[in-house]
Amino acid sequence: MKLKDLYIGLDLGGTFIKYAIGMADGSLLYHNKKPSLSDREQSEIFYNIFALIEELKQKAKELQGEIKAIGFGSPGAINFDEGRLIGSTPNIKSWTDADIRGKIESKFNLPTWVDNDANLMVFAEARQGIAKGEKNVIALTLGTGIGGGILINNQVYRGDHFAGSELGHMSINFDGPRCDCGGIGCIEQYASAPAMEKNYEKKLIMANKSIPDDLSTVTLFERAGEREKEAIDTINDTAVYLGTALANIANIFNPAVIVIGGGVSAAGKIFINKIDAEMRRRAMPPSVRHLKVLAAKLGNSAGMIGAIRLAAEMYAKR
Amino acid sequence: MKLKDLYIGLDLGGTFIKYAIGMADGSLLYHNKKPSLSDREQSEIFYNIFALIEELKQKAKELQGEIKAIGFGSPGAINFDEGRLIGSTPNIKSWTDADIRGKIESKFNLPTWVDNDANLMVFAEARQGIAKGEKNVIALTLGTGIGGGILINNQVYRGDHFAGSELGHMSINFDGPRCDCGGIGCIEQYASAPAMEKNYEKKLIMANKSIPDDLSTVTLFERAGEREKEAIDTINDTAVYLGTALANIANIFNPAVIVIGGGVSAAGKIFINKIDAEMRRRAMPPSVRHLKVLAAKLGNSAGMIGAIRLAAEMYAKR
Repeated sequence: MKLKDLYIGLDLGGTFIKYAIGMADGSLLYHNKKPSLSDREQSEIFYNIFALIEELKQKAKELQGEIKAIGFGSPGAINFDEGRLIGSTPNIKSWTDADIRGKIESKFNLPTWVDNDANLMVFAEARQGIAKGEKNVIALTLGTGIGGGILINNQVYRGDHFAGSELGHMSINFDGPRCDCGGIGCIEQYASAPAMEKNYEKKLIMANKSIPDDLSTVTLFERAGEREKEAIDTINDTAVYLGTALANIANIFNPAVIVIGGGVSAAGKIFINKIDAEMRRRAMPPSVRHLKVLAAKLGNSAGMIGAIRLAAEMYAKR
Repeated sequence: MKLKDLYIGLDLGGTFIKYAIGMADGSLLYHNKKPSLSDREQSEIFYNIFALIEELKQKAKELQGEIKAIGFGSPGAINFDEGRLIGSTPNIKSWTDADIRGKIESKFNLPTWVDNDANLMVFAEARQGIAKGEKNVIALTLGTGIGGGILINNQVYRGDHFAGSELGHMSINFDGPRCDCGGIGCIEQYASAPAMEKNYEKKLIMANKSIPDDLSTVTLFERAGEREKEAIDTINDTAVYLGTALANIANIFNPAVIVIGGGVSAAGKIFINKIDAEMRRRAMPPSVRHLKVLAAKLGNSAGMIGAIRLAAEMYAKR
């Protein structure tokens, strides 16, 4: 009997590691998540990963399949040729310079490809998500930070030295606030979840209103739905900032689709439509004529799916 | 006797059309320029172009060569697949929707490729200019306007619908001045030659100094060389604006080289170095670690050389 070709996809985050087994077309046959142990030593994080891969190998047997390759998504800048982290990533302190491919390949003897998580997100959304079949796609993930992924001519663009795609660190104000990255006026300083919360808090204080204990973008969007002025104003401000960033992306890349992902994007269609309208007010008309701004479709599975599809495509090209 | 393979390159501008005959390696065997008749009817502009191509065909005979293909550079957005202008371009009023490939091919029976002039500039500089051999290169042309060209994985990136690369219309201030393109705070409003002149004039007025009759970026840079405070301040302002734009380009593309071309770039090394330093103050360190900011090398010939090389590469790929 011929065994099915299967691929493993892992998606390491600051809180959870998601892991799955699936087929070359990105369909998941089994997936799960466990704590990523991101506050532990690097070796412990790897032991944890190894255990999950063992679990998936067991699953593969039950599924009468053969694992061909592993795809791995990680935060931070990744040297794609070497499958290794470049420097550090803020939410997993011990992960600095982690030799992800080297460690996994020497343990499991399975070809492994490693990519940045936002890259895998844009890849998954373009292969089988909201931008399916499109060749030129930009993704923005809105959350605690703002991440970016670039797909050009059907391939993830990773920069000349694996350090591009930092769309959250595009300045929309040369004279703006200093960013944690060292830059000035980065969009992340204006439109990340913490930035939105800070802006909202400021408006509540100005209006002599009380600050809710559970202030978050969730409460913010809820209250905007209840037509609270300060909440609506905060969202309108954010749409101006993000609309500026999207107009820049449109004028520079003229992509087919801009995919909006991440926690904040879950706020839904009204928010996305506001950003879209603001972008169109600012961009050059030919740059946005055919452009769609769409919410991501694959949600929390995008990383696993992207990792599996990446492994399958790279394995086929070997 | 075997005839040499030759290619024609034309570079249409608002004042002149440059035209050349050369070889696949971009070496020019003959080149010249004539008025582009940009204020005439479209048909007259084409007659003029046809006459230049006839002249080059005559040259090819004298050179004992055979013309294989034609490359054509034009301002404006170009549908590369169709070799035709998309809409209009401000400095050649009658050029709207010009069917450049169609008109030339039906007259001369030579395969013709048409591209935007800034695209040909980045292409030429990456093939045989200051960024020779690099795969990921961004070009900015500083002049009356600010143009952009993007080379990714050795190929010109033209956008999903031929409307990207508008690097001059990247906003560096979401709350800045309105741009002619309809956008807000575009870098062109801050760092084009007219913007620099306006800024300089304002500073001279504030200082109660007289405005020179021949105020231009040439006088501006001369006076900065003579250590005039207002001139130096103007150049420092411009470096902040351009440094912000370059930091964005670095964070987004992490290119190997950013090529600075156009009239203003002729101001030389001190100006480029100021922009470069400002970029490094603002960009993410990994994005600029290997990045070089360099003045264009091919100058006014870049368009012709790019057109010839494009024609040769496309002809070889047919």
